[in-house]
Amino acid sequence: MPIPILRCEKNSRTPFERFLSGAKEDLSSATKNILPILEAVRTRGDKALMEFTEKFDGIKLSSVTTNPHSVQTNIDSKTKEAFLRAKSNIEAFHEAQKRESWSKTIDGNRLGVKYTPIPSLSVYAPGGKALYPSSVLMGVIPAKIAGVGNIQLITPPQKNGLPEILIWLCQILGVNRIVTVGGAQGIAAAAYGTETIPKSEFVVGPGNAYVAAAKSYLAGQGLIGIDSPAGPSEVCIIADSSANPKWIACDMLSQAEHGEDSSAILLTTDEDFAKQVSEELEKAFIERPKRLEMKQTSIYKNSAILVFPSLEDCIWFSNELAPEHLEIQTRDNESVFAEIEHAGSVFIGPYSPVAMGDYISGTNHILPTARGSRIYSSLGVDTFLKRVTFQEVTKESLQNLYPFVKLMSELEGLDEEHGTSVKVRTEESL
Amino acid sequence: MPIPILRCEKNSRTPFERFLSGAKEDLSSATKNILPILEAVRTRGDKALMEFTEKFDGIKLSSVTTNPHSVQTNIDSKTKEAFLRAKSNIEAFHEAQKRESWSKTIDGNRLGVKYTPIPSLSVYAPGGKALYPSSVLMGVIPAKIAGVGNIQLITPPQKNGLPEILIWLCQILGVNRIVTVGGAQGIAAAAYGTETIPKSEFVVGPGNAYVAAAKSYLAGQGLIGIDSPAGPSEVCIIADSSANPKWIACDMLSQAEHGEDSSAILLTTDEDFAKQVSEELEKAFIERPKRLEMKQTSIYKNSAILVFPSLEDCIWFSNELAPEHLEIQTRDNESVFAEIEHAGSVFIGPYSPVAMGDYISGTNHILPTARGSRIYSSLGVDTFLKRVTFQEVTKESLQNLYPFVKLMSELEGLDEEHGTSVKVRTEESL
Repeated sequence: MPIPILRCEKNSRTPFERFLSGAKEDLSSATKNILPILEAVRTRGDKALMEFTEKFDGIKLSSVTTNPHSVQTNIDSKTKEAFLRAKSNIEAFHEAQKRESWSKTIDGNRLGVKYTPIPSLSVYAPGGKALYPSSVLMGVIPAKIAGVGNIQLITPPQKNGLPEILIWLCQILGVNRIVTVGGAQGIAAAAYGTETIPKSEFVVGPGNAYVAAAKSYLAGQGLIGIDSPAGPSEVCIIADSSANPKWIACDMLSQAEHGEDSSAILLTTDEDFAKQVSEELEKAFIERPKRLEMKQTSIYKNSAILVFPSLEDCIWFSNELAPEHLEIQTRDNESVFAEIEHAGSVFIGPYSPVAMGDYISGTNHILPTARGSRIYSSLGVDTFLKRVTFQEVTKESLQNLYPFVKLMSELEGLDEEHGTSVKVRTEESL
Repeated sequence: MPIPILRCEKNSRTPFERFLSGAKEDLSSATKNILPILEAVRTRGDKALMEFTEKFDGIKLSSVTTNPHSVQTNIDSKTKEAFLRAKSNIEAFHEAQKRESWSKTIDGNRLGVKYTPIPSLSVYAPGGKALYPSSVLMGVIPAKIAGVGNIQLITPPQKNGLPEILIWLCQILGVNRIVTVGGAQGIAAAAYGTETIPKSEFVVGPGNAYVAAAKSYLAGQGLIGIDSPAGPSEVCIIADSSANPKWIACDMLSQAEHGEDSSAILLTTDEDFAKQVSEELEKAFIERPKRLEMKQTSIYKNSAILVFPSLEDCIWFSNELAPEHLEIQTRDNESVFAEIEHAGSVFIGPYSPVAMGDYISGTNHILPTARGSRIYSSLGVDTFLKRVTFQEVTKESLQNLYPFVKLMSELEGLDEEHGTSVKVRTEESL
């Protein structure tokens, strides 16, 4: 039961239509379950958090927060070196995204944009098996560079205590506080605040269905801003026969390793090459059997090799799909990349497997999934900055422009006050 | 019953707390009502649109779309001149917001950001009394400058036909299509598409509760992106006794003119000045009685003059409030503006009433309300652009960084495939 190899035509959508459904997770039943939890945290604060943590995590907390800067950590130097290198690259890439406030003269007046950071942020980090310290770097660094002053980490408690690596990362990143409460109750603590936890106005980071439902519900109430919801991981690869089929197979399996609902789509014009990649996948299943069932389900059920008549059609499909990760491994990568409009992050050339961006190259790995990159961006400095626009109008310009304001406000039936607020300034001096 | 003048202290929140509730409109009952409408449009397309239009608007449509470029319009030259001047200023301000794609070398690799526009947009424009042609400029121009290729206007049909001003604006702005269907059914048409209406992946623009509920519901389903919901209009003014109390009163009434739930908050340290403004408001009610009841309800019920002990406290409150519009009219406007962190658009100095930005200065008047500017921005070019990040890793850098990727992926339990995808490239040549 190898990976499906499907001959495709742009105008005959049946073979590939299912990959374009972009279905979002249905959170309605999770939302129903979490509403009482949110209400309990809102009304009873820390006490409710402790009760839920005992009930759901089997852990009795004496305090729901930890100050990472008051804890001794002992991380080995090799681990430190790796994370510091990643931190340095991620910082360099995100520093380059910083915005300078500006102003210019337009029609006689000074107009401009002042960039200011959001006031506060909680970064959610899942616990247990899904503990990804690299995601803490990705969530916190752009916010720090944007100038967000008040950042806390929300993470489930662990039987053996908080992982040292998380505490150390919070120390070096300047995270103010760790809240050791997971699930919907952790998100509620961030959004409402409690006696010991300051309220955050923005919450980012991946989590299970209850975390996603809580984020989405509280955002709908206008209480918090959130990042776009994280669905299953995906990669799309545009490759021709100049690529190494074994490497391509490895890259597809890197996504499959995340979970059985992950997806890897190879787009090519070359059926022989498609078969070689399929064979490499089968070899890899024998050579690297860890998480075999999960990887096979992902590859056989949720992945495919689509063979299109032309490279242009491959690019067309990739733009329709708007994959979370896109790899380009062809004879002319720049020409292909020039045509890419919709993708979360793009990995160009043979030496750019997605894993490089997941950990260390410097780009952010918190990316829109489920075709989200057609309209949304990855996490970046802009996620945490706002444009405050401003204007200073001169008396002369106000006098020149008043006839236009008068006419337009009359047309909209707002001349009595809108019009007058300008008119009085043309008639009298301050 | 004059406007409330409240003596306030930062640490005693009772007098001003109600202005900080930032309550969002409850859309749950509207959402329940619109679900059958959305489903009907999804499954029966144009036929459903025509039925709803006959039912809700009392208008029989022969077609649900109009090509603005095939219609003759006859707009007088004065009106043209006003809108063209506004268009030119709005274009100049938004052109300055354009992003250049960039790349730089980080740790030996080429990393960068490519800015690309969202694929399609519908701009909703309410009809009838709330017909604001200026909002069409504000919705369409930033998207055009971002490079959005496919823009349609969604607007309710009118008994006397489409207003010529809307058709002419669509002509000069390059809007592809006018969909003459209003309410939730208009939003559904944009999100799902029909036989004659192409689907849009992004929908912006203000509307009634049904429009807002439809936008919010369809965004929650992942079908469309939307702007932040538009609540009642607000202005906050920081002023001292150097300001003209009559002008301040006019500016407050400009917001009150939008509706009885609009709000105008004056922040000052000077109680005498507060009283002068209150008197000017009373005089204005006599001199300009149009929409009197609405304006008085807004001013007496939803507005106030807050007298704080210091200018610093006024600024503190303004940042807490994060008003849609902020005017600064003091002896030292630049110092005050330097401390402003959260506001939609700021109007600096005596000659910058909000009406100038509403119509003609060039800034966008589609702004976050209900404290939304603490985390969100006004509509701008960035609303319609995405950051596609990219990287091209060199063989040498991959070899240097592999030990770090190995360690980090082991720590996260993802070494088998993530680690291997990098490792194979250090061992073999392409």
